[in-house]
Amino acid sequence: MDPAQEAQNRETFRQAVTNTLERRLFYIPSFKIYRGVAGLYDYGPPGCAVKSNVLAFWRQHFVLEENMLEVDCPCVTPEVVLKASGHVDKFTDLMVKDEKTGTCYRADHLLKDFCKDKLERDPNLPAEKAAEFRHVLAVLDDLSSEELGAKIKEYGITAPDTKNPLSAPYPFNLMFQTSIGPSGVSPGYMRPETAQGIFVNFKDLYYYNGNKLPFAAAQIGQAFRNEISPRQGLLRVREFTLAEIEHFVDPEDKSHPKFPDVANLEFLMFPREDQVAGRSARRINIGEAVAQGVVNNETLGYFIGRVYLFLTHLGIDKDRLRFRQHLANEMAHYAADCWDAEIECSYGWIECVGIADRSTYDLRAHTVRLT
Amino acid sequence: MDPAQEAQNRETFRQAVTNTLERRLFYIPSFKIYRGVAGLYDYGPPGCAVKSNVLAFWRQHFVLEENMLEVDCPCVTPEVVLKASGHVDKFTDLMVKDEKTGTCYRADHLLKDFCKDKLERDPNLPAEKAAEFRHVLAVLDDLSSEELGAKIKEYGITAPDTKNPLSAPYPFNLMFQTSIGPSGVSPGYMRPETAQGIFVNFKDLYYYNGNKLPFAAAQIGQAFRNEISPRQGLLRVREFTLAEIEHFVDPEDKSHPKFPDVANLEFLMFPREDQVAGRSARRINIGEAVAQGVVNNETLGYFIGRVYLFLTHLGIDKDRLRFRQHLANEMAHYAADCWDAEIECSYGWIECVGIADRSTYDLRAHTVRLT
Repeated sequence: MDPAQEAQNRETFRQAVTNTLERRLFYIPSFKIYRGVAGLYDYGPPGCAVKSNVLAFWRQHFVLEENMLEVDCPCVTPEVVLKASGHVDKFTDLMVKDEKTGTCYRADHLLKDFCKDKLERDPNLPAEKAAEFRHVLAVLDDLSSEELGAKIKEYGITAPDTKNPLSAPYPFNLMFQTSIGPSGVSPGYMRPETAQGIFVNFKDLYYYNGNKLPFAAAQIGQAFRNEISPRQGLLRVREFTLAEIEHFVDPEDKSHPKFPDVANLEFLMFPREDQVAGRSARRINIGEAVAQGVVNNETLGYFIGRVYLFLTHLGIDKDRLRFRQHLANEMAHYAADCWDAEIECSYGWIECVGIADRSTYDLRAHTVRLT
Repeated sequence: MDPAQEAQNRETFRQAVTNTLERRLFYIPSFKIYRGVAGLYDYGPPGCAVKSNVLAFWRQHFVLEENMLEVDCPCVTPEVVLKASGHVDKFTDLMVKDEKTGTCYRADHLLKDFCKDKLERDPNLPAEKAAEFRHVLAVLDDLSSEELGAKIKEYGITAPDTKNPLSAPYPFNLMFQTSIGPSGVSPGYMRPETAQGIFVNFKDLYYYNGNKLPFAAAQIGQAFRNEISPRQGLLRVREFTLAEIEHFVDPEDKSHPKFPDVANLEFLMFPREDQVAGRSARRINIGEAVAQGVVNNETLGYFIGRVYLFLTHLGIDKDRLRFRQHLANEMAHYAADCWDAEIECSYGWIECVGIADRSTYDLRAHTVRLT
């Protein structure tokens, strides 16, 4: 089948599924009677049943079976915590504004859409231009604010809805801001991840664990990201339930006592070097992946194996599931290494679980802040 | 035992329990390493286990056994919704400010503490003055902003920590404010209750129920209240998990098919007229309470009975549990009638479940707003 027809089929399939899920109240655009708010969704009765079962299974599979320490921290977070964690300074996306209406867009999305559109729809595109657009797509995540702005200008990209000129790109912090207490002098944010609640409790959890490493802590709760332009249905939303786990290990000894339990699992992995070399994802035995250093250590490898078991037990087709290592330019500000569990759906391969080696980034950041 | 000794014993007992719960990480003041934030608490591992079990039992007892329609809506709520529901205008407390440091206090708390302190600690208090203070305590919830300010002035009440003069009382909205989207033109709030998520979905839920009344909808989720002066440990906090149920009934027929299942339950009730007459709470058969009109209708009575079963199954001592009807001046802006399930603990009788007859307040408010 040609790619255009395939894309069309995927779109038709997606529409049919979306219509069914909405009609049966699996999910509902939030505040629909007030015309809704982009990126906010309600779950209706069947959606709640699915969510509640998935969370119960998550708690069983990870927290209970692995004796993790669970915590439950507030969403409202004082600025000092998120300043230390780097989120106040670095949790940003580059945004451009329609200079007349003030409507905002993600600068990288506009450039990506422009290049993809040219490549897919312009039959007269010279080979040289095509190569240039492909190059831009490849380095998109690496472009600075200035470089993004220059490309947008060079290609004459305008606001998609109005064709008005666009502002230069500028960073926009993705956290919802608020103020704690009545005096108005304590700025706060709605947490963008649940992990900081675990890190700030490290000392108490370590004590609770008999002052022994390793241990893992987990949290299920709401996370908030004030996305510039939410899209793709439930995939990029402004509020969602996040279930996070942090493993605290001795930096000199990252072995895991239960690693043999998963060492023989074999599934699709897509290491960084294979991506750079233009190869495809391939089946790798996780025991061998750790032995060869493709995956850095046993704890990381064990957790990847457990995530594989979790997702396939939930019913994810193992041929549509892969673990892809982030390229250096993709990683969040705290990550030393990162593997995404990706699931192939009608939007392509989509990140579902992010597995980051944060090394000592967070504990160090809070320690530095406190001393 | 004399009352002072009894209060002392309660305080000692409470301290011992609090210390144990904190040491064993049932709960932890949030962001403790950064000196914490008043009114925000984390649950540690045993606290999470308790909470998770209580919520699972809640879902079993109410949602599953009663075939309620569950929804799960975002915490971030656009202003238009909370404007319609009355929360933007009416969800306020009266606040006074230390005129030099800017520290804020709840005006009614200061007046209450002052009167209680005088009554309890001043052995030379003339009978006339004592009667006056008792009267102030009785009408506290009824005082207007001006009356509260006048009393604070008359009694010469100053800021508790600094003894500085206080500002006149002014209303402070208890909702955490934020802004949705990058343009800064869409104000929003963190929801102060989960109920509005149910009301704005009424039409879809009604359709889901085959366009038939009655039905009940439920939601478990975070609620946020930017309390002026959080106190009493976990009892008055700025963020908490709320589990709410709304029954939608035909206003002409509020009978409940399963009412006979609870009609023979007998437990402590404290109707408004008994409170006004200075009588005590007494054991009432819920079937008779409905028949006599003490409780307005079968649906309200059925739900009170189910809450009684829920709380006693959780282990609450039935002699320390009562249902108290709100006095007219106590009720929230949306309530036509309200019964609180109160549990007697070391802080006295504390509201644990609020059961309000909101009549058509919310559906009407959203309808008016939309037309």
